[in-house]
Amino acid sequence: MRAHTEYLVFNTRARRELVNITERLAEIVAAAQIAEGFCLVSAMHITAAIWVNDEESGLKQDVMEWLERLAPAGDYRHHQTGEDNADAHLKRTVMHHQVILPVTKGQLDLGPWEQVFYAEFDGQRKKRVVVKVMGI
Amino acid sequence: MRAHTEYLVFNTRARRELVNITERLAEIVAAAQIAEGFCLVSAMHITAAIWVNDEESGLKQDVMEWLERLAPAGDYRHHQTGEDNADAHLKRTVMHHQVILPVTKGQLDLGPWEQVFYAEFDGQRKKRVVVKVMGI
Amino acid sequence: MRAHTEYLVFNTRARRELVNITERLAEIVAAAQIAEGFCLVSAMHITAAIWVNDEESGLKQDVMEWLERLAPAGDYRHHQTGEDNADAHLKRTVMHHQVILPVTKGQLDLGPWEQVFYAEFDGQRKKRVVVKVMGI
Repeated sequence: MRAHTEYLVFNTRARRELVNITERLAEIVAAAQIAEGFCLVSAMHITAAIWVNDEESGLKQDVMEWLERLAPAGDYRHHQTGEDNADAHLKRTVMHHQVILPVTKGQLDLGPWEQVFYAEFDGQRKKRVVVKVMGI
Repeated sequence: MRAHTEYLVFNTRARRELVNITERLAEIVAAAQIAEGFCLVSAMHITAAIWVNDEESGLKQDVMEWLERLAPAGDYRHHQTGEDNADAHLKRTVMHHQVILPVTKGQLDLGPWEQVFYAEFDGQRKKRVVVKVMGI
Repeated sequence: MRAHTEYLVFNTRARRELVNITERLAEIVAAAQIAEGFCLVSAMHITAAIWVNDEESGLKQDVMEWLERLAPAGDYRHHQTGEDNADAHLKRTVMHHQVILPVTKGQLDLGPWEQVFYAEFDGQRKKRVVVKVMGI
């Protein structure tokens, strides 16, 4: 059994952004030299998420607008601490902050349309994602 | 360490459907001959989800009606591509598309009411779920 | 490869409660004597969740109030069985019922603000969480 860990760093230009990381993950899996296993991808900051869905610009706008309806920016108790990003914590919660990607025959075992996104809801500063591959 | 991978195929009669797959997963775990480990169950199509909850018909209707309120069918930017299923992408996002089931003493280690469902939001065509069991 | 499994038991005083379990999980990981691996934390009852977010009292109230808006207590088909907790099933669904924590160099590999919570939505009775650590 073997384990391989890398950290991705993001510093998005926009406050909210979807960044397609599928190719970077494929490279990490190749570097891990694991034939069969799991690849954990987990946002280490609590205002970001990992989302597996479609690389289609309309849908990417749809999901961001929909999240704004479900968890709007606005006035929250959390802002009494001086923060202004409670909505980002809630948006991350809907999207979930991590995924496990299966690795089969040395490659990410994704469906035909599955693409992996880093979903930033409070960016413009350095934030990390842990990627840990484990298997045989 | 051992890894065992199978793919389930679904072609639901209804466009939206909850299919209880707990027994099929138990059979896969038995075939995997793993005593202690993890069983990943992940929808490979981006308009389906995996849901762990109750085998109770009222609740199953409740969750589908609630998802329709949170992520209604309707007009989305995604539909400019010719698609009509943006709501299915969003419903999958709320439900999350995968779970990891613990395997203990060779069996799925589920709570008393935990049942595992394939949640289809745009069916009536062939779609796959990957099941990968890894452990000792 | 090694696997280590423990069960946490909760019996919350309030019906709805967020319980910070980060230190208990760190102790389990230490007991597991695993250097590199994954720690699965999964609620075994279908009206509870596991949430990774901020130990900040305002935000903790915000998330509970927000869940009440998204999945309000009220009248559901599920209640025809005599139950009164359908909203708890839906709240758990938004929050997701499990997380995988990476273990690196023998410790939980969490971001600076990541804290792990047991999220109870129908408590005041004994409920379990399975914690399974697997790695090398």
